[in-house]
Amino acid sequence: MGMVGGGRGAFIGAVHRMAANLDGKIELIAGCFSSDPEKSKLSGQDFFLDPSRVYSSYEEMAAKESVLPVGERIDFVSIVARNDLHYKVAKAFLEAGIHVICEKPLAFSLEEGKKLREVVQQSGMVFALTHNYTGYPMVKEARAMVQQGKLGRILKVVAEYPQGYAITALKEQADGAISNWRMDPSVSGVSNCIGDIGTHAENLAHYISGLELEEVAAELNTFIPGRTLDDDGSMLVRYKGGARGVIYASQISTGDENNLNIRIYGTEASLEWHQEHPNELIVKFAEQPRQVWRRGNSYNGPEAAKYTRTPFGHPEAFIEAFANIYVAASEAITDAILGNPAPIAGYDFPTIEDGITGMAFIEAAVKSSKNNSAWTKLES
Amino acid sequence: MGMVGGGRGAFIGAVHRMAANLDGKIELIAGCFSSDPEKSKLSGQDFFLDPSRVYSSYEEMAAKESVLPVGERIDFVSIVARNDLHYKVAKAFLEAGIHVICEKPLAFSLEEGKKLREVVQQSGMVFALTHNYTGYPMVKEARAMVQQGKLGRILKVVAEYPQGYAITALKEQADGAISNWRMDPSVSGVSNCIGDIGTHAENLAHYISGLELEEVAAELNTFIPGRTLDDDGSMLVRYKGGARGVIYASQISTGDENNLNIRIYGTEASLEWHQEHPNELIVKFAEQPRQVWRRGNSYNGPEAAKYTRTPFGHPEAFIEAFANIYVAASEAITDAILGNPAPIAGYDFPTIEDGITGMAFIEAAVKSSKNNSAWTKLES
Amino acid sequence: MGMVGGGRGAFIGAVHRMAANLDGKIELIAGCFSSDPEKSKLSGQDFFLDPSRVYSSYEEMAAKESVLPVGERIDFVSIVARNDLHYKVAKAFLEAGIHVICEKPLAFSLEEGKKLREVVQQSGMVFALTHNYTGYPMVKEARAMVQQGKLGRILKVVAEYPQGYAITALKEQADGAISNWRMDPSVSGVSNCIGDIGTHAENLAHYISGLELEEVAAELNTFIPGRTLDDDGSMLVRYKGGARGVIYASQISTGDENNLNIRIYGTEASLEWHQEHPNELIVKFAEQPRQVWRRGNSYNGPEAAKYTRTPFGHPEAFIEAFANIYVAASEAITDAILGNPAPIAGYDFPTIEDGITGMAFIEAAVKSSKNNSAWTKLES
Amino acid sequence: MGMVGGGRGAFIGAVHRMAANLDGKIELIAGCFSSDPEKSKLSGQDFFLDPSRVYSSYEEMAAKESVLPVGERIDFVSIVARNDLHYKVAKAFLEAGIHVICEKPLAFSLEEGKKLREVVQQSGMVFALTHNYTGYPMVKEARAMVQQGKLGRILKVVAEYPQGYAITALKEQADGAISNWRMDPSVSGVSNCIGDIGTHAENLAHYISGLELEEVAAELNTFIPGRTLDDDGSMLVRYKGGARGVIYASQISTGDENNLNIRIYGTEASLEWHQEHPNELIVKFAEQPRQVWRRGNSYNGPEAAKYTRTPFGHPEAFIEAFANIYVAASEAITDAILGNPAPIAGYDFPTIEDGITGMAFIEAAVKSSKNNSAWTKLES
Repeated sequence: MGMVGGGRGAFIGAVHRMAANLDGKIELIAGCFSSDPEKSKLSGQDFFLDPSRVYSSYEEMAAKESVLPVGERIDFVSIVARNDLHYKVAKAFLEAGIHVICEKPLAFSLEEGKKLREVVQQSGMVFALTHNYTGYPMVKEARAMVQQGKLGRILKVVAEYPQGYAITALKEQADGAISNWRMDPSVSGVSNCIGDIGTHAENLAHYISGLELEEVAAELNTFIPGRTLDDDGSMLVRYKGGARGVIYASQISTGDENNLNIRIYGTEASLEWHQEHPNELIVKFAEQPRQVWRRGNSYNGPEAAKYTRTPFGHPEAFIEAFANIYVAASEAITDAILGNPAPIAGYDFPTIEDGITGMAFIEAAVKSSKNNSAWTKLES
Repeated sequence: MGMVGGGRGAFIGAVHRMAANLDGKIELIAGCFSSDPEKSKLSGQDFFLDPSRVYSSYEEMAAKESVLPVGERIDFVSIVARNDLHYKVAKAFLEAGIHVICEKPLAFSLEEGKKLREVVQQSGMVFALTHNYTGYPMVKEARAMVQQGKLGRILKVVAEYPQGYAITALKEQADGAISNWRMDPSVSGVSNCIGDIGTHAENLAHYISGLELEEVAAELNTFIPGRTLDDDGSMLVRYKGGARGVIYASQISTGDENNLNIRIYGTEASLEWHQEHPNELIVKFAEQPRQVWRRGNSYNGPEAAKYTRTPFGHPEAFIEAFANIYVAASEAITDAILGNPAPIAGYDFPTIEDGITGMAFIEAAVKSSKNNSAWTKLES
Repeated sequence: MGMVGGGRGAFIGAVHRMAANLDGKIELIAGCFSSDPEKSKLSGQDFFLDPSRVYSSYEEMAAKESVLPVGERIDFVSIVARNDLHYKVAKAFLEAGIHVICEKPLAFSLEEGKKLREVVQQSGMVFALTHNYTGYPMVKEARAMVQQGKLGRILKVVAEYPQGYAITALKEQADGAISNWRMDPSVSGVSNCIGDIGTHAENLAHYISGLELEEVAAELNTFIPGRTLDDDGSMLVRYKGGARGVIYASQISTGDENNLNIRIYGTEASLEWHQEHPNELIVKFAEQPRQVWRRGNSYNGPEAAKYTRTPFGHPEAFIEAFANIYVAASEAITDAILGNPAPIAGYDFPTIEDGITGMAFIEAAVKSSKNNSAWTKLES
Repeated sequence: MGMVGGGRGAFIGAVHRMAANLDGKIELIAGCFSSDPEKSKLSGQDFFLDPSRVYSSYEEMAAKESVLPVGERIDFVSIVARNDLHYKVAKAFLEAGIHVICEKPLAFSLEEGKKLREVVQQSGMVFALTHNYTGYPMVKEARAMVQQGKLGRILKVVAEYPQGYAITALKEQADGAISNWRMDPSVSGVSNCIGDIGTHAENLAHYISGLELEEVAAELNTFIPGRTLDDDGSMLVRYKGGARGVIYASQISTGDENNLNIRIYGTEASLEWHQEHPNELIVKFAEQPRQVWRRGNSYNGPEAAKYTRTPFGHPEAFIEAFANIYVAASEAITDAILGNPAPIAGYDFPTIEDGITGMAFIEAAVKSSKNNSAWTKLES
């Protein structure tokens, strides 16, 4: 594979590389790791790359890789650059005939996202979006339970994603030290918190429940003075078909780490999953003992089992879940390269459509919040 | 003490009696346990009462008890009758010069609540409302932490109260077996779920945080067909001073029991408390190890210590917390009877003002929900 | 009821009184609360007793109460005095025809315990021992599961009871401030830690599993310098029929509170219960999702349901469990007084036999430890 | 790297490969994956190896690899073959001048282990043993706390490792289907359960506490009929310097998965760590709120931070911990190859000495058990 972005010191680039490495089937062989050619070059050395495959710009990379023979060229590119670059970079590679695995959010805006959808469709290339929390085996188990009807009709969804890391900015700010690009609307888009993590909560709820979000009544807040984008947001949500819910995300929830949790309530049973204890899925049937389904057991369904590497009690976690997105996308990419037909059940990774919904979700939330939390429909 | 309501088979009456019994300082000596005189009489036998102190109506009870000599007559009455009777019964006893401990919600409506406030003020009697969850020692510890400024400025509150018991009504209903008075607007008032348990979440958030609720944007739902009142509801909330939050309550959250949880986020630290594990208070300071404060330890403050009966690790729970409301109210009643001045710090039990806020909260939530979740201020 | 011991400031006496009060069916009417008559008198005032029923010695109390008419006299006495008095006090009341509820351990020594057994048998009176942890509803549920064969054949038992409170003695000692009678062999008997809490672990394991302890290989330790009795002890155990196990208790396990836990492993399933989270029972069937059985649900068996006061999610805890010993013993006492036949299934409280086993357990553990942990059989 | 053992279908071989892959710095380039040359060859294809580097025997592999030029030849070999082969294979590679990472237990017997120690010493090569549980960051944090004296003097250690997987053999056996080599004394050595997992508990306790095990009083059990080796075992332990403890391991603890837990009690504080929730370390100082130290925070010490890949709340787990053994061993191997001096603080991976202690532990436990649990010293 190749990579765009993710040079020295970048968090998410490192995660993508570990995820790709894990199973010993994907090798990083080319990249453009920074807009600064020197930094890109040094990063390439860190990763033991042939210097001739370390590029100064993504345009150069797309152009040069696409003319290499299959087998030698990269099969796909991982895009881990900033939000405002996703569209341009993805477009360049897709049009060069190279498959794409892309960080979320999909793009800088819904409009840009829709243009990207057209590019994807016209190119016929594989496009995977790393909503990585859907890669956890017990999340897949949860989804299978819903699909099998074990929960009955779903009435309510509560998805929460509080983080607390931004609170330290209250003190840093005294020193004038705000530098995170996520806070910059010209890079990040119309939202910071909802865009960065709210979309994970929204996507996870959709993935498990299968429900389509119809409209939101949101309030986005900016608690850190001097910022223009949200660092916290809560909303009531309505799903098509009558289910209701609450989604919230926050970066100023002091002391919380990466506390993504989801609860889905049906007429027969409810589910509860906590990202920080990912090997367990809590299942509550009405008037029965509470159940804790644990990863790696013989009672797990094939959906979870396929994405399980170690036996029960040998916990898997964030990197393994991330790697599962790579596993599923690689399957699709391999099939595409070999000309194999897609499996009837499809592939299990987030697609351009998840990305479009995410962008529509962000824009609806921002619009609702500006309109005093009026119910606002997602554009489709 | 005396009791109105709470005859054979009533849940909350039995809880009040156990709470009153626990410390061996309060004795039930009179009552009107049912609107059915025969049932009232039988209940009186269950409780080993002198038959002459078991009454056929609350009016009779108030009249007859009030003319007994002090020491012989009841010092106070516990009102555990249905919502629509709270006002009338409380008024009768207060005006007869008898102190009152009353179940929540305060009254049938905010209007009625306000009338009751006038009665309380004019009577000069003690009036305590059993928002019992504020009786837990670790809730008192939480409140003390906030008051001491340990959390910094509070930014966000999340209070949730999902129960799942009503979901079984989906099946019962097939048999036409809906009989719970809580579902009957002529008894319960304008709300079922928000009135019954949402007010607990609201009151708990207020008690710990000290914040005043300003307005709500709510959606109340009725998932059980054939019902007219809400069995679920979620809302965004705004507190005076800029804090924001989410409050939700539900009776159709399958498999949840009495899952009242609260999280309060400040600029320096956050708190987390779970009613089903009440002996622990989770405290998270930014960039420090998470702390678990546990009941009964030497590091607990005097606010919690005063309401602690057993040493650490010998858990206390629901009944003990409920009894703490009785302990605090008894203090006030004793002081009133003996003519002692009130302590400077005041008494630690919910008052008529908590009740008024609760009623305003219910009515604002219902109004907002009817108005498509528009932000709606609490009437004061 | 009457009480011997448990005056002002005594922990366990207060617990017994709350336990007796809780259900409003037992009234404390007489007592000898201290060997110091003045202190006994003052304690009697605290409890609102008629001064004529507050005695200067237990002998006087037994003598005077036993000649009062039934209905006026105490129906039973609660003995909460120090270990070395249990035998003498119990004997006095039993021989005076008064039923007894007695704190554990049963007596000062196994020999004394056996003499007490004879007294109990000859008197025909009810004798209940407050191994209070068997009063928890979910412990009763656990026992019922074992009896129903749900666990299959039991292979292994692990019962642990670490407390940490004694560690502070390391500093107190510097001030020469050791005064706890539990450390005094002339009051406490041959063991402190194993006698005080080890017996609870042993009794709980027996109550749930139904297994009979055959022999132990123990090491008792005294970590606090200057003490003569154990403050920690661990042992391997062998049950009749082939099950094996580990039991340990400790008072120097820094930071642990009252951390009694038990795990019972059978060929079909295992159980796990934690005293500090008593409303849950964890059940693990081979190759099935883990189950959490929770108190107060419709799926609980009659054994637990009978001793349940509040609905699910409204937690019960230590005092309620303690009160359940009083409930069960009161049943037996009432039947004895009224001449009712005992129920076929018997009563559900710990008896003199549990006490004898406890004493044999203590003595075997001490003997094994002195004999370099050699396997030592329990005397029967 | 190269690998011996771990062909298709082998659990632990796959774990080693993922651990080695994770950070993108180690590449599998040679192997002898099975004693069956055909199976070895097919496994080599699975791993995309050059067929010329897939060998039919470990002897051949050691011989041929050792004559390749540095840079081309393998830098080290991972030995994941069965217990009885560890010594022979390790010896072959060490003597050929190739560094070794070896699965535990070290060898078939203590005697063999001692011979291996001599080989290691004479060769001067790096030898790392994969006691992988010491690779967890929060385990390293725990160790650092002990070294810094935060716990005071350590009094007690409780290490438990119950698994339940073997219980299903009760049914399989009916079908005569016992095939696991761990049960075969001619392959596994004198112990199954204590050797396989008891040594992990022992090593983890030693790693964190720094204590040296002096003697054990053990009972090993064989609950599955027809087996000759233990499937369960418990023991009292004495450490040099006066600390006492309990260690047990089990494979018949129905429903438990990989439930390795450790508690270490000191005079000032105690620690608690649970392998199935590895990102948290519970720390209990006397009379202070309980602390939960979590991975990835700014308050973590350098020992943990060095082995942390993802930020707080993005959990790491089994494979990452395993990979940390590879990271540390790779450091040593790189230094050895480059001729760098070892860091003053040494390397952080288990060595031949850990392996020797493990073998002595196994043999002492077996000997004690055969001698009716008599206290038995570890041979050194």
